Amino acid sequence: MPTPELAVIGGGQLARMMQQSAIGLGVRIRLLAEGPDVSAAQVVPDHVVGDHTDLDALRTAVGDAPVVTFDHEHVPPEHLRALEAEGHACRPGPHALLYAQDKAAMRERLGALGVPCPRNATISSRDDLEAFGYPAVVKTTRGGYDGKGVWVVRSAADADEAFAADRPLLAEELVDFRRELSALVARSPSGEVRSYPVVESRQVGGVCAEVIAPAPELDADLATAAKALAERIATELDVTGILAVELFETADGRLLVNELAMRPHNTGHWSIDGAETSQFENHLRGVLDLPLGCTHARASWSVMVNVLGGDVEDLVAQRAVVLAAEPDVKVHLYGKAVKAGRKVGHVTAYGSDLDDVLARARHAASLFTVG
Amino acid sequence: MPTPELAVIGGGQLARMMQQSAIGLGVRIRLLAEGPDVSAAQVVPDHVVGDHTDLDALRTAVGDAPVVTFDHEHVPPEHLRALEAEGHACRPGPHALLYAQDKAAMRERLGALGVPCPRNATISSRDDLEAFGYPAVVKTTRGGYDGKGVWVVRSAADADEAFAADRPLLAEELVDFRRELSALVARSPSGEVRSYPVVESRQVGGVCAEVIAPAPELDADLATAAKALAERIATELDVTGILAVELFETADGRLLVNELAMRPHNTGHWSIDGAETSQFENHLRGVLDLPLGCTHARASWSVMVNVLGGDVEDLVAQRAVVLAAEPDVKVHLYGKAVKAGRKVGHVTAYGSDLDDVLARARHAASLFTVG
Repeated sequence: MPTPELAVIGGGQLARMMQQSAIGLGVRIRLLAEGPDVSAAQVVPDHVVGDHTDLDALRTAVGDAPVVTFDHEHVPPEHLRALEAEGHACRPGPHALLYAQDKAAMRERLGALGVPCPRNATISSRDDLEAFGYPAVVKTTRGGYDGKGVWVVRSAADADEAFAADRPLLAEELVDFRRELSALVARSPSGEVRSYPVVESRQVGGVCAEVIAPAPELDADLATAAKALAERIATELDVTGILAVELFETADGRLLVNELAMRPHNTGHWSIDGAETSQFENHLRGVLDLPLGCTHARASWSVMVNVLGGDVEDLVAQRAVVLAAEPDVKVHLYGKAVKAGRKVGHVTAYGSDLDDVLARARHAASLFTVG
Repeated sequence: MPTPELAVIGGGQLARMMQQSAIGLGVRIRLLAEGPDVSAAQVVPDHVVGDHTDLDALRTAVGDAPVVTFDHEHVPPEHLRALEAEGHACRPGPHALLYAQDKAAMRERLGALGVPCPRNATISSRDDLEAFGYPAVVKTTRGGYDGKGVWVVRSAADADEAFAADRPLLAEELVDFRRELSALVARSPSGEVRSYPVVESRQVGGVCAEVIAPAPELDADLATAAKALAERIATELDVTGILAVELFETADGRLLVNELAMRPHNTGHWSIDGAETSQFENHLRGVLDLPLGCTHARASWSVMVNVLGGDVEDLVAQRAVVLAAEPDVKVHLYGKAVKAGRKVGHVTAYGSDLDDVLARARHAASLFTVG
């Protein structure tokens, strides 16, 4: 195989969708995949099967690729530093990824930058939690995602599961929020930064269910502030590629940072069909230090609805039903086996009438879920 | 490897771009590739290396895929009939492909359908050519493409090369045309047909150089007639997937059919970035008998300019220069080695001002050509 231009660690749907953009840009990707037939391995010929916590597997996959990027944030920082010492540019680098890997470090750093966050404290005992006060959101500082490793705690008993394992925890104020927003930016090592329209993210059970771009009726000043905040965080933390800043819009009209993700993000999937340049293309352009593409929306409204595993076992067979009902919805299947609640695909609709766009996207997603 | 849903014969850029759409739709492709690192083999893991004229290679590649489609029209019809007899659906089938493979058969059939074509006759001798008259366009009935196998003949001497090999020839009237148009349609085995906007195709030396969608200042009745003609040909010839009908718009305002292609076509590449559903997605939807997607343009104007091999040897390195100069142009590289005049990529620009869109696309393509 010729030398890949980019190594991608992790073979999930994010790497799969990067490949769609890589094909156009002529970027040869080599993948480290969790298995021979995981989502991205199905579409990237040059892949190595191995574990991202195994430095030798990482080295084999990276080979002589000059740049390394990621499908997820779970590669141990010491391995990233080893790859950097061996001459590979990790983008984002371990110094940035730390703040997506460790929520306590993220809160401390954002606090030092004066970025508005929910009130928070690291806790190591029930006494600490009592001192923090109820209600609280207790999170593992590392490894949580999609609602896993997060507990809403209204009394000491609610924290049993959180304290069951001996691991670092963070307590955060339970924010009285109006809705959740997401501000995505792309950034290159040269320092170019481009913001996507701020979107509304609707969660069910801690999992992103649907995204509306742009966030409906968002105050213009708040949208500007959210973009500025995300751009500042990307720059201060030296993020390269896509940074997603998940935000609470509080009941009293403030913005608080909830989470950071340093990779293409579920709240940016609408951009494949709905923006001038998709988040996947701009992630590649960012990490390869290419000039970034326009992040504007192509339609008045875009709606992305996740397809979460449900009754429908054969998504490929069901596609005919979905496209017959909603021929103008864009279908994105991830090549994953269906399990209850697992993200197995998404659909996007766009147009000038939000109610219509929302209805079409929801209908299509529902047909992939309820047989 | 799991059973592919679709076998694609031929590993050129058309198969490569099919894969971009296949990833979204969740279509698993198995490819018959001319070599281990041809354009599409770089992005389709499940590929077999072999020759499309070798039935055993075709059988190996097709395996147990229920449907077979094509990157080109050069598979021998008897092999397609063998695959059909063995239970695979060839789309388009040999009965349709014949008219893209054999220009004499195409002229005869279109003539019988009353479709307007240049005056034409099969010729087997110089006497036949004299009888046909000068000037004429002489073509090999089989195997010509991109200006190869085509001679403009103004006297007997101009036909020496055409007659040098002993092969069937077609003589056609040298049409006094204002410009070349292309009418693309997608069709499914169920009979659903969708027309793309009629585009203008500008050729240099018999090779498509740039495409403007829609064709500027095209008379509305002529556009309607061109679409109707393409839809009728697709239906009458039972084409499945994409049919491109290349047309002359004559100086006196008539339409004449020049060529047919039964696969995604260079004059439809603009649709990747410029249409609601790209020709590649609709080709897949068509051949898999899925409901077709909307073929409308997403912008007032889209311009596609081919990148033909020139001074620039390393297109991947040059990408940074192109994107710095034209960050909003969409780059499509084919992963091919640069040779003079070879199609190695294309760029697309779109927007509301045709002059601006044309200038940006041409500038980007020129930067990939002249170092």
